[in-house]
Parts: sequence; structure tokens; C-alpha cells
Amino acid sequence: MRVPSELTEFVKKEDDFFIASHFNPEGDALGSSIALHMALKSLGKRSVVFNRDLVPDTYRFLPGSDMVTGVVPAKIDNLLLLDCNSSGRAGLEKCIIGVSAVIDHHLTSDGFGDIRWVVPECPATGLMVFNLLKVMGADISEEMAINLYTAIGIDTGIFRYPNTSYECLAASAELVRMGADPGMIAERLFNNYSRNRFLLLKETLNSIDLRDGIAVTVITAGMYISTGTTSADTENFVNYPLLMGDVQVAMLFRQLGNDSWKVSLRSKGTVDVSIVATAFGGGGHRNAAGCEINAGLQEAKERLLKKLKDIVGL
Amino acid sequence: MRVPSELTEFVKKEDDFFIASHFNPEGDALGSSIALHMALKSLGKRSVVFNRDLVPDTYRFLPGSDMVTGVVPAKIDNLLLLDCNSSGRAGLEKCIIGVSAVIDHHLTSDGFGDIRWVVPECPATGLMVFNLLKVMGADISEEMAINLYTAIGIDTGIFRYPNTSYECLAASAELVRMGADPGMIAERLFNNYSRNRFLLLKETLNSIDLRDGIAVTVITAGMYISTGTTSADTENFVNYPLLMGDVQVAMLFRQLGNDSWKVSLRSKGTVDVSIVATAFGGGGHRNAAGCEINAGLQEAKERLLKKLKDIVGL
Repeated sequence: MRVPSELTEFVKKEDDFFIASHFNPEGDALGSSIALHMALKSLGKRSVVFNRDLVPDTYRFLPGSDMVTGVVPAKIDNLLLLDCNSSGRAGLEKCIIGVSAVIDHHLTSDGFGDIRWVVPECPATGLMVFNLLKVMGADISEEMAINLYTAIGIDTGIFRYPNTSYECLAASAELVRMGADPGMIAERLFNNYSRNRFLLLKETLNSIDLRDGIAVTVITAGMYISTGTTSADTENFVNYPLLMGDVQVAMLFRQLGNDSWKVSLRSKGTVDVSIVATAFGGGGHRNAAGCEINAGLQEAKERLLKKLKDIVGL
Repeated sequence: MRVPSELTEFVKKEDDFFIASHFNPEGDALGSSIALHMALKSLGKRSVVFNRDLVPDTYRFLPGSDMVTGVVPAKIDNLLLLDCNSSGRAGLEKCIIGVSAVIDHHLTSDGFGDIRWVVPECPATGLMVFNLLKVMGADISEEMAINLYTAIGIDTGIFRYPNTSYECLAASAELVRMGADPGMIAERLFNNYSRNRFLLLKETLNSIDLRDGIAVTVITAGMYISTGTTSADTENFVNYPLLMGDVQVAMLFRQLGNDSWKVSLRSKGTVDVSIVATAFGGGGHRNAAGCEINAGLQEAKERLLKKLKDIVGL
């Protein structure tokens, strides 16, 4: 992976940086930001590492996560924008920004950034930062390695998604040699369910309604109450029915109120559920979309199933 | 990883081999066996690749899996025994065996084998075979790479278990460069449940008995019947309760017969369940072990739980 020389020149020349990433951050945004912040310090430079939404509990294990600030400054001299490519995605749209450099692997773009290093085919921003640090001659410490391994890990489903490449495995091997502990990191990222959350998962799977190629699961308000959980505990639940080889679409209905449901849709391969979600006023991507629907549960399910049948033939 | 010279000499000297692995095989047994079989062929040698239980559906995607035979010969001249270290574990206890070489990463052992390469700290037999092939100068084809990546992947939970090392990530990166497709392999290994298997998972989770730091799940003979499944459908089920952050040990009891249970134990971190399994005549590794116990379910559970308490303090 070639690191643009204008980026390395910029980082070499300046001494003070503001590192930002997208709000509602996950491991790639946070891990690559914190690792870059530490590396700049090790090179004798100063930086601030910023995220509007600070660090969710899941990522508090990242060394240096306590250094992330949520304070938006009025003015930024040298911005390093990571894992997104518009100032608005980082919550910085009202800042006066001097020079900005973007390091990102997302496709959507409004052209923001004086220096733009955007590589959509790269699985993770963490892999780009890894390459930048090597080009800059930064020593990658154990703390940086944990951050970068997490960044690459979360965006490849720890090497399970189709974007998993030779480069990200080779870099991750190096990061393990530098001190990242794969077992610990996987444990922190995935095996972090509370007992209540596990009970809710169990109940959610019990709700399954299997049709041809489609699996529907439901979480009612009563299930949250009986298990002592909230909608924040449902992350990734929609995906479980996709364990079945012949399930192409998974839908999870979560109750919002009387006759009101939030619907999450996931699909495999070329099945485009965003069209279905859009038809109900929602949106998303081909394989992950969502919408809301006001109806009783049976009617809501049948309306979604009918739309799926009409639009994608399932 | 040093490959013993007596092993490479043996493989160089002889021309005809019988490759066997433990019955009830998983990806490491099969992937390393098939890759070695292909490599021997590429080196101009002949071999038979054997598994008493043939290839479960999950692993039929492995290139060369159709070459696995279940026919036990009366006599074997040169045995290469993989992923286990006694002839009984491969179902070959009645064979007349000439020279035998063991390639394995399991701790328990009865000393079988004229040549013994047993490395308990190695995460997968596939990683040992990878090193053997390199020392032998075999060209690793795409087909071999898929087999070896699967072997290493299954025994490290695709790089999520604590045994995930620099070496296995570095080797896996090389295997991707040689043609293994990480996304396809993960999909085949994990998102391949039949509907019946998913229903069995659901029922297994419903059986959960949560104690302090321990989760016990049970699969009775009746559950196999009601869901139309067999024990071959239970792979990985033992791990689900480990999703909970405060569960240190997961035990899965699978009914073998009246008052007869196969117990799988999994643990996190430094909790050593192999000591518990060994106490009941079984064996395994620190974080993954198994045994059989003849008792009614309640008594079997309480005996295991008591031993866990006595030995590891849980």
C-alpha cells in the first residue's frame, strides 16, 4: 500500500495535530485514532485525539482510550480526519479548519480535505495508519499494536468478512509480534454479553419464524422487561439466523410502542434489502438496512414479507 | 517451528504413506490430512488419506475431501498419524502397522509412534503440516492452502482463541497469498447451519443452567430426535455461553445413551479445564477439553461441577 508523499510530508512538517474520527465510533475509528495519536507523540509531536461521542464501554479496554476528548475547538490548525471523509461526520462542521488530511476507506465522499488518502478497497483505516506509521519510521509499541489490531479486527469481523486480505493478515501478524493479544482482543470485542443480554438473545431466537429463505425474529417490549434489557442490548442479534445456509434475509422486529416496530434487515450476497427498507421510509445498504412500521405485529410482518416477495423475489 | 529431521527423513525416504486422523474429525484433522496427501502427491509419492468417519457435510467444501476413504486396511506400512497420537483415536487399533509417525498438537499421549512430533503449544496440526511442507520444499497449491487455512482457522476459532499466535497469523497470511479465501472459508465454516441444526441450537441454549462463572448446556437424545439432528450438528455449540463476559467455563453435556454423557468443556484465560477432563478419563487442552461420564444427568452435572470447584476453584 502506497502512502501518499504529501501526507507524510504534512505529518513530518507540522508539530501540532488534531485527530478526529466519525461520531458513533467503533473500533476502527477509535483504534486508528489512538494509535496515530501515540505515534505522533513518540515522534516528538503534539496532538489531540477527538471523538464527539467519546469512547463506548466496549472500547474502554483500548490503551489510551482515556485520552480521547469530546471537546470541539473553535479552530483547528492541522486536522487528521480518520475513518470518514467529511468534517460533518466527525461533528466538526462548525470549526474553522486550517489544513486537513483525510485517511479513510469509505466510498462516500463530498471531496473534503486538502490531502485525501481514500482507499475504498482497503478493509480498515487501521491498516492505512499501520502503513503510515511504518513509512514515518514510528516504533509501534504494544499499546499502539492493540489499537491497530482492534481497528483491523472490527472491520473484518476478525478476518471473517470477504474484505479480509493478505495485507490485513500479514499486518495483524506483525501487530501480534509487537504485543497485540488476539485472544484478549476478540474476547473484549465479542464475548462481552451480560447475562440479561444472553437471556434476551435466547428469547429472540425462540421467536423465530422461518419462511422460504427468510427468517423473522421479534423482540417485544415484554421481552425487554422480563430479561431486564433495552434495545442497546440487541446489537448483532439480527445476524444470528444468517447462520443458516439457506437463509438469505434476516429481519428483526423490535417493539417501539403499541403497534410500532423498528425493523432491521440483513441479507447475504446480492439480495438488496435497502430497496425494501426504502419502500417503508427507511434506508441503508444492500446487505444491511432498516425502517419503522406502524401496525400490529402480524400485519407488520406480512407487509414486510410481501414487499420482500414483490421486490427481491423471496 | 523446528520440524524433526527424523520426520522429514522418513517422508523423503519412503514412497507410500497412509495418512490418518482422529475419528469424528473436524477441520484441523481433515484439512491437515488432505493438504499433506496433496503435497505428497506433488512430490511424486503415493498416499491414502483416511478417516474412519469420512468427511462431515460441513467440510465437503474442502478441495480433495472426496479423496478421503473410510476403509480400514489390515496392514499399514508407513503411517502418518495427524491431529491425534494413538492409533485407537483413528480407529486403527486392529491394524498391523509398520513404521508410524505422529504429527499432533494434543497433550495427552500413550507414547504411540516411532517418530513423534507432538507440540502441545502449537495451535493447530495444520500449522505443523504447513511447516513440514515448507521444509520438504512442497509447492503449496491453492487447494492445499484452503485446507491448511481451514485447519488453522477451526482450531483458533478463526483467530479468536487465546492460542492465536504470531506464527498462525503469519502462516495464514501466506496461505491467503497462495489462494485461500478467508471470507468464503469463514462462511462455509460458520454460516452453514441446516434449519434443523439451528433449531437444535435454540433448544440447547434453552437448556442453559447458569452458575457462578459457569454455564452448563445439555443435549438429550430426545432433542436430537425432535429436531432431526445428530451429534455431528453440535460443533461449536459449547462456545455460545462464553459470549457472556462473566462466564469463565462452559460445559456441554451430550447424551450418548442411558446414563451416558459426552462432556465438552471450554474455558477462558488461565482456567485449565483439561485437568477436570483428565480426572474423568478424558483429556484435551487448557481451554478445550472433553470426557465421558456414566451417570444420570443431574449426577453427572454435579460431579463435573464439584470437580471444577475442587480443581479450578469455580
